[in-house]
Amino acid sequence: MHRYRSHTCAALRKTDVGSTVRISGWVHRVRDHGGVLFIDLRDHYGITQVVADPDSPAFKMAETVRGEWVIRIDGLVKARTEDTVNKAMATGEIELYAQEIEVLSAAKELPLPVFGEPDYPEDVRLKYRFLDLRRETLHRNIVKRTQVISAMRREMGSAGFTEYTTPILTASSPEGARDFLVPSRIHPGTFYALPQAPQQYKQLLMVAGFDRYFQIAPCFRDEDPRADRLPGEFYQLDLEMSFVTQEDVWNTMGPLMSGIFEEFAEGKPVTKEWPRIPYDEAIRKYGSDKPDLRNPIVMEAVTDHFAGSGFKVFANMIASNPKVQVWAIPAKTGGSRAFCDRMNAWAQSTGQPGLGYIFWRKEGEKLEGAGPLAKNIGEERTEAIRTQLGLDDGDACFFVAGDPAKFYKFAGEARTRAGEELNLVDRDRFELCWIVDFPFFEWNEEEKKVDFAHNPFSMPQGGLDALQNQDPLGIKAFQYDAVCNGFEIASGSIRNQSPETMVAAFEKVGLSQQDVEDRFGGLYRAFQYGAPPHGGAAFGIDRIIMLLVGAKNLREISLFPMNQQAQDLLMGAPSPATPTQLRELAIRPIPPVKKD
Amino acid sequence: MHRYRSHTCAALRKTDVGSTVRISGWVHRVRDHGGVLFIDLRDHYGITQVVADPDSPAFKMAETVRGEWVIRIDGLVKARTEDTVNKAMATGEIELYAQEIEVLSAAKELPLPVFGEPDYPEDVRLKYRFLDLRRETLHRNIVKRTQVISAMRREMGSAGFTEYTTPILTASSPEGARDFLVPSRIHPGTFYALPQAPQQYKQLLMVAGFDRYFQIAPCFRDEDPRADRLPGEFYQLDLEMSFVTQEDVWNTMGPLMSGIFEEFAEGKPVTKEWPRIPYDEAIRKYGSDKPDLRNPIVMEAVTDHFAGSGFKVFANMIASNPKVQVWAIPAKTGGSRAFCDRMNAWAQSTGQPGLGYIFWRKEGEKLEGAGPLAKNIGEERTEAIRTQLGLDDGDACFFVAGDPAKFYKFAGEARTRAGEELNLVDRDRFELCWIVDFPFFEWNEEEKKVDFAHNPFSMPQGGLDALQNQDPLGIKAFQYDAVCNGFEIASGSIRNQSPETMVAAFEKVGLSQQDVEDRFGGLYRAFQYGAPPHGGAAFGIDRIIMLLVGAKNLREISLFPMNQQAQDLLMGAPSPATPTQLRELAIRPIPPVKKD
Repeated sequence: MHRYRSHTCAALRKTDVGSTVRISGWVHRVRDHGGVLFIDLRDHYGITQVVADPDSPAFKMAETVRGEWVIRIDGLVKARTEDTVNKAMATGEIELYAQEIEVLSAAKELPLPVFGEPDYPEDVRLKYRFLDLRRETLHRNIVKRTQVISAMRREMGSAGFTEYTTPILTASSPEGARDFLVPSRIHPGTFYALPQAPQQYKQLLMVAGFDRYFQIAPCFRDEDPRADRLPGEFYQLDLEMSFVTQEDVWNTMGPLMSGIFEEFAEGKPVTKEWPRIPYDEAIRKYGSDKPDLRNPIVMEAVTDHFAGSGFKVFANMIASNPKVQVWAIPAKTGGSRAFCDRMNAWAQSTGQPGLGYIFWRKEGEKLEGAGPLAKNIGEERTEAIRTQLGLDDGDACFFVAGDPAKFYKFAGEARTRAGEELNLVDRDRFELCWIVDFPFFEWNEEEKKVDFAHNPFSMPQGGLDALQNQDPLGIKAFQYDAVCNGFEIASGSIRNQSPETMVAAFEKVGLSQQDVEDRFGGLYRAFQYGAPPHGGAAFGIDRIIMLLVGAKNLREISLFPMNQQAQDLLMGAPSPATPTQLRELAIRPIPPVKKD
Repeated sequence: MHRYRSHTCAALRKTDVGSTVRISGWVHRVRDHGGVLFIDLRDHYGITQVVADPDSPAFKMAETVRGEWVIRIDGLVKARTEDTVNKAMATGEIELYAQEIEVLSAAKELPLPVFGEPDYPEDVRLKYRFLDLRRETLHRNIVKRTQVISAMRREMGSAGFTEYTTPILTASSPEGARDFLVPSRIHPGTFYALPQAPQQYKQLLMVAGFDRYFQIAPCFRDEDPRADRLPGEFYQLDLEMSFVTQEDVWNTMGPLMSGIFEEFAEGKPVTKEWPRIPYDEAIRKYGSDKPDLRNPIVMEAVTDHFAGSGFKVFANMIASNPKVQVWAIPAKTGGSRAFCDRMNAWAQSTGQPGLGYIFWRKEGEKLEGAGPLAKNIGEERTEAIRTQLGLDDGDACFFVAGDPAKFYKFAGEARTRAGEELNLVDRDRFELCWIVDFPFFEWNEEEKKVDFAHNPFSMPQGGLDALQNQDPLGIKAFQYDAVCNGFEIASGSIRNQSPETMVAAFEKVGLSQQDVEDRFGGLYRAFQYGAPPHGGAAFGIDRIIMLLVGAKNLREISLFPMNQQAQDLLMGAPSPATPTQLRELAIRPIPPVKKD
């Protein structure tokens, strides 16, 4: 028989009854039922119930074992009596009658329990991550994570993509977030940088003639801790394609990702045909470029109904500035004064002057708009608004007025809040879409200049001609995001692979050809030697897995995460370097300035 | 029709004749045959021949295109005439009659040619890596690399392994090679380290209860440039298994790796059943712990034949020191004075006093041992040696005498040289084996103390008892290497997962329990809380791919390698940091000391 096991702890079935077998694993828990000991033995695959009664030669040893000890058990497989069969367990029809127990590794008293999974302080969990990872939920999440990534690899392969690995020790990128630096020992005074993303390398791969690239790519950003991003490293499903339009990227990746979601959605519905929503429309309808489409609320402009109306606050705003609009946030089933007042109070708590509303109720046979706004604008306009939005008895509508560029975020938040409070959001589904036609440039109010709105490497729609002849703030980019349930899960674009167009684009934000050469030399040089049209995207793997397992915290889907202070409490990083290391790297830490 | 292509450059066949199609790609070369232009258009998938005669509306444009321009061509698929069919090309039965050509991206004059692949200086190739990678050989090697890695993932998955990703920003490891350090911005004066290997993390995964881990793992060592290792990062197929003996690792990974080799060996024979050669035996037979088993030469001790013989040099050595042995290196077909003298001269060139030999030739009917040694020891002993080694007319044998611990390396080199010079080595095969039973400790002559011979985390054979009761230098470890054609392709062991045994092992090399806690706290702590027996290995991916594609240089199988001065000439790394970066990281480069 094998030294440690003939079966895993998930393997034994009724057909094994009568066999003598060997299993090894962790003592999940021990129960004493009137002198008979029951040991749940756990390994990666499952749990087997082991029994030792006082007649068993293993009884004495069974009495000594404690939770999380690693033991080997030889025993006889017995059928459970009908009333003790556990249908919820794969091995629930049998139990193992222990004949011999060997302790492979004892355990000291546990700093956090594995069985039962009570909540425990974060720092203890991270320091003893090897115990935390034994807990059923985390173990299952991590396994699912590996399965999702494996499925991504499989599907990308089937779609004709090849996985290439790009360097991790590379050059500092002057755009974007802060780099992690690595001092060079061989070239004192110089530094490598860890890649924020393999953006330039994947584009170089296209220029090098490789057609469809993907990579489960580690990315590094030295950012201050944020709730939705672990310090240090994170992973992207990074991809790039040559000789494609943006429709090719959408037609390839939409169905592929829907398939991945379906594979792990445990029956929840997943969008098959991803809507392609222009950025402007997303802002107008949802007040966000990452709309949660599970929320059925769609905002509409109702400016005309307020222009010249008796509600002077809105009417005067509309009259004084042609940019002013009034947006309606229809809230089905929200038609009670209590709810509307709650929304109004919430708006005030976020610093808004308030949130105007109308709600509809039956007065006898008559459907009546209630609330101060309805009174001010009168019955006819109130009814016109109701008709436009398709509202009815028991529904409400909220109104936001002003320059949409300034209020759309708040309007989007109000939409989200109304949808969630009224339980209009169907949480058990995955709503996916593309947000497309992002603006290429944006106005930097502080510096009074034009800036890139997103990725400077994207191709502006209309190309060189648009850059030369259009208002830059009106130019769209071939740039798109993928959004799921209100979270951005991917970003991508068709790249600007023309050196002239690249220089023209950078000139608009005040940078010269020389700047382009200095900052993006590798890529700019490559584009001079035959660069194919290309584009791609990067999907955020951590976010996708959080959505799929329903985790709220990144640490629930990460193997060995750092804490929010960017420390690895398990391994003790970061830590001081030795004098030899510092001397070899020719660097010296600057002592902190003492404050008086 | 699609904006860029209806077919790739490898897709068109005789069945497409008559279709109007669109292809895009790079101009591989242009030929002018009596006024008719032939353009070989190349993409990732293959090459299509395009024809433009003066009647073609695309002729004018065809005249302007140059090598490596990216163009789109619309055209009519025509069958080639029988005498122009090219059976070596997938698209060799057709050609595309060009009707429209669009230049998608022109190319400046090339700093290195793509077509024809002449040799070019390394630095130009690295700076313009995107052009270098277009060359057929390199393109094919890189694609094969991705296929090998993909096959590894597939096979590891089939064998029940799960791929887990371990952190890249981690703690400095006090053992082994030099770390790359990453200054922490949030904790000034402290540093992360890039992992030399995920050794501790994969062991922690086993302690955390994950059963079969693997990872295509990036590893980082800040070593001085060596011919066989690129500066910076390299990749391992890293794996670990719980509840296993070393036989389980061999029985799992041997057949699996044989399968990978067979898949990419292009018909070359691959070892199916890997011999398991104890370290001592490998040294004795091959003078190396990474023997090239394609070389049929097996060394044998022939000490007795020289003891008390007329060859006084050897006889006196044997008499004076019981450690002294004489090893024979039999060299079939090496039986000429010219060859034997060449070997002798080579030995002297390496600093040896010389290389004694006997060779056999027919003198009339009589087989005679020739050379000074044969004369000195006489006919009987010469014949006894010949019989022991199974040599014959036309064969030779070389002899090395002394303390084998001191000469075995040289003997191994002589074996290699004889095998290669005599063409005894069958180059067209892959000979794989396990080298097992490595010594656990070795004698450090400089410091006059016992040191770990290899991995301090390995389990000593005999465990705690052996450490307490045996001569440490006689203890073997459950440690093994995988070897292919003379190269180490993997190293692994069963780990020491017992805290007591770990402390006892470190005490032998002069380290205390406190040292163990300080240096390997994460792992040592983990072993206190129920650690399963576990073991694994790490296969060197770069080496395996070099063997499979027959590359001599790591840059022939790496995508974006650094040069031997650890510089990325394409992206310009390493480079100076900005003052802001240095201030944020609270480090200061130390200016180089001026030499007088």
